[in-house]
Amino acid sequence: MASIDRRRLLKAAGAASVGASAPAVAAPAVAQSSPEIQWRMPVSWPKTLDTLYGGAEQFCKYVAEATDGKFQIRPMLGDERIPALEVTEAVTSGMVEACHTAPYYMFAKDPTFAFGCAVPFGLNGRMQNAWWLEGGGEGLMNAFYAKYSIYGLLAGNTMAQMGGWFRKEINTIDDLKGIKMRIGGFAAAVISKLGVAPQQIAGNDIYQALEKGTVDAAEWVGPHDDEKLGLYKVAKFYYYPGWWEGGAMIHVQINKGQWEALPKTYQAILKAAAAQAHNFTVGRYDALNPAALKKILASGTQLRPFSESIMDACFKAANEVYAEISAKNEDFKKLWESVKAFRADQYLWQQLADNTYDTYMMIQQRKKLL
Amino acid sequence: MASIDRRRLLKAAGAASVGASAPAVAAPAVAQSSPEIQWRMPVSWPKTLDTLYGGAEQFCKYVAEATDGKFQIRPMLGDERIPALEVTEAVTSGMVEACHTAPYYMFAKDPTFAFGCAVPFGLNGRMQNAWWLEGGGEGLMNAFYAKYSIYGLLAGNTMAQMGGWFRKEINTIDDLKGIKMRIGGFAAAVISKLGVAPQQIAGNDIYQALEKGTVDAAEWVGPHDDEKLGLYKVAKFYYYPGWWEGGAMIHVQINKGQWEALPKTYQAILKAAAAQAHNFTVGRYDALNPAALKKILASGTQLRPFSESIMDACFKAANEVYAEISAKNEDFKKLWESVKAFRADQYLWQQLADNTYDTYMMIQQRKKLL
Repeated sequence: MASIDRRRLLKAAGAASVGASAPAVAAPAVAQSSPEIQWRMPVSWPKTLDTLYGGAEQFCKYVAEATDGKFQIRPMLGDERIPALEVTEAVTSGMVEACHTAPYYMFAKDPTFAFGCAVPFGLNGRMQNAWWLEGGGEGLMNAFYAKYSIYGLLAGNTMAQMGGWFRKEINTIDDLKGIKMRIGGFAAAVISKLGVAPQQIAGNDIYQALEKGTVDAAEWVGPHDDEKLGLYKVAKFYYYPGWWEGGAMIHVQINKGQWEALPKTYQAILKAAAAQAHNFTVGRYDALNPAALKKILASGTQLRPFSESIMDACFKAANEVYAEISAKNEDFKKLWESVKAFRADQYLWQQLADNTYDTYMMIQQRKKLL
Repeated sequence: MASIDRRRLLKAAGAASVGASAPAVAAPAVAQSSPEIQWRMPVSWPKTLDTLYGGAEQFCKYVAEATDGKFQIRPMLGDERIPALEVTEAVTSGMVEACHTAPYYMFAKDPTFAFGCAVPFGLNGRMQNAWWLEGGGEGLMNAFYAKYSIYGLLAGNTMAQMGGWFRKEINTIDDLKGIKMRIGGFAAAVISKLGVAPQQIAGNDIYQALEKGTVDAAEWVGPHDDEKLGLYKVAKFYYYPGWWEGGAMIHVQINKGQWEALPKTYQAILKAAAAQAHNFTVGRYDALNPAALKKILASGTQLRPFSESIMDACFKAANEVYAEISAKNEDFKKLWESVKAFRADQYLWQQLADNTYDTYMMIQQRKKLL
């Protein structure tokens, strides 16, 4: 890990992480405003997922283009030194400058991280964008992140996810009891109240866990990703919706010291690149999910909505967990109150023009008139 | 208009539009990669609309921040020289470098422009993002724009709009006959088949037209904007959805010569700034619409959905217009085939996890459980 030692050395000397071709001595003002920088950015996903890993690549590409190649960020796959689900900790410790992740992987460390990603029966993906930019989310979340020496950028969203793959049908709450399920973070805390035994497993290892019977059920994201991971080959029933992620934000988390050492222009470029990567990831999911859905349905997958009784039981259990954690975690309580207040009125609007428009169009689609 | 003459002079000399402090002679390579540039960008909206005009301001702010103030773009209100609905033509002619507009204002010039904004029963706002970035939309639209010496960036979206303000209730198709309505572009072509007399009026002038009775009905965008324009004071019935704009894209249109003369870094920065402005505009609408909706309802506004018979008649009329224009306009046909093919399967996916999640949450909201 020579490059890390070298980087630390430079950092200790008070310089930003500087690439090989940059001058080691103080440079003139013009050059300093566009320094050469190289960052490493571990990601939480396998390379096969061109939506999530692809989003990380796009982010890096945009930054390079906007800086004429002077600011290079390199996505890295998780490995034994920096496991996919622990990339945030590598940013906090300063082992790397940044990571590209679903913040709720840090739920066990502090459940407040989940508000940077998804919480059960929380905001949908579109509302998350509004909350982040215009509802105070960005400020609140970054105030929390600061405790972990992180500055976060909203850089992607999966939008609402599926509820996952089950080997057998789940009709009532009783059918959930004793099920071993790959399900992460906050959702695990909720669903365990209903008798499910949750397990946190990285995306790349889900197929094997389901195939071997280590788990009876597993959720990942949605048709495109799930098809890539081959999950339809090892479980027949595909449930919806993923009530624990009406939208899952992807963040680029940056070491706070590294962030603050950047020129303002580079900070602005990173923010804009995150917005571009966000729209890319959402757009690619939406563009690719329909074909993937057709493919898995053709292979025999059976779609099933969660029953109302299961949804209601999960909603009740989620509210219990919110109350329990809020009672003992001030940061969590503050974030939850912000999200809850924002959520209260959002559907007043989104049910009106958008939902009515979409419903009319869905009916035309079913009539094969589109 | 001295500044325009000066700019044209510089352009004629083969230089990009260069600010006062830049050297007039050939500069060294480093300086050329970050030249000082000043652009003017007329917009199609009044300053009171902090969503649309605000989006233009944000775009300019991001570009300035990312270039350390070297690339300055100034939003300008429409006036008698460059009317709000004709800003595109000022870009084509080279009178200004860029504009911020709803491209369908150019529908009368060529209906193909509407695909850069909204078409009746077309893609919703989220699908438009996917089509633009991953469905070939960006390439197809810019190939068309090139005929008008324009390069376009997707820089905002209103998401689904309301159907507008009516002085009297509209229950059947017969109620539409003879109505004078402020409604623009493509929708005007469709709704005139049902006996409506459409009028294209800039946002700032709608209130007066409705108040004076020049029109009997008028559509603009949605609760926040419509409340700002005061439309609820001059018409009682507020219909939904705006079937002619399931999402309305806002574009920054740039003079193609100006675009191509930019350094690649500046092109990358403009693209990223457009993505940021896009997310800002969508987020601000979503954050502000619920409160505006409450306010206009408290003032006596009556919400009404368009009846199924009206929606069906409009859908049929829209398909007739698509066929008529496609028969005589190759560009239009090409864009329509792309949008139609993309639309065909989009609801297969969006009706599943997203719509089911949202429906469950809407029910909880009505039960006052959120």
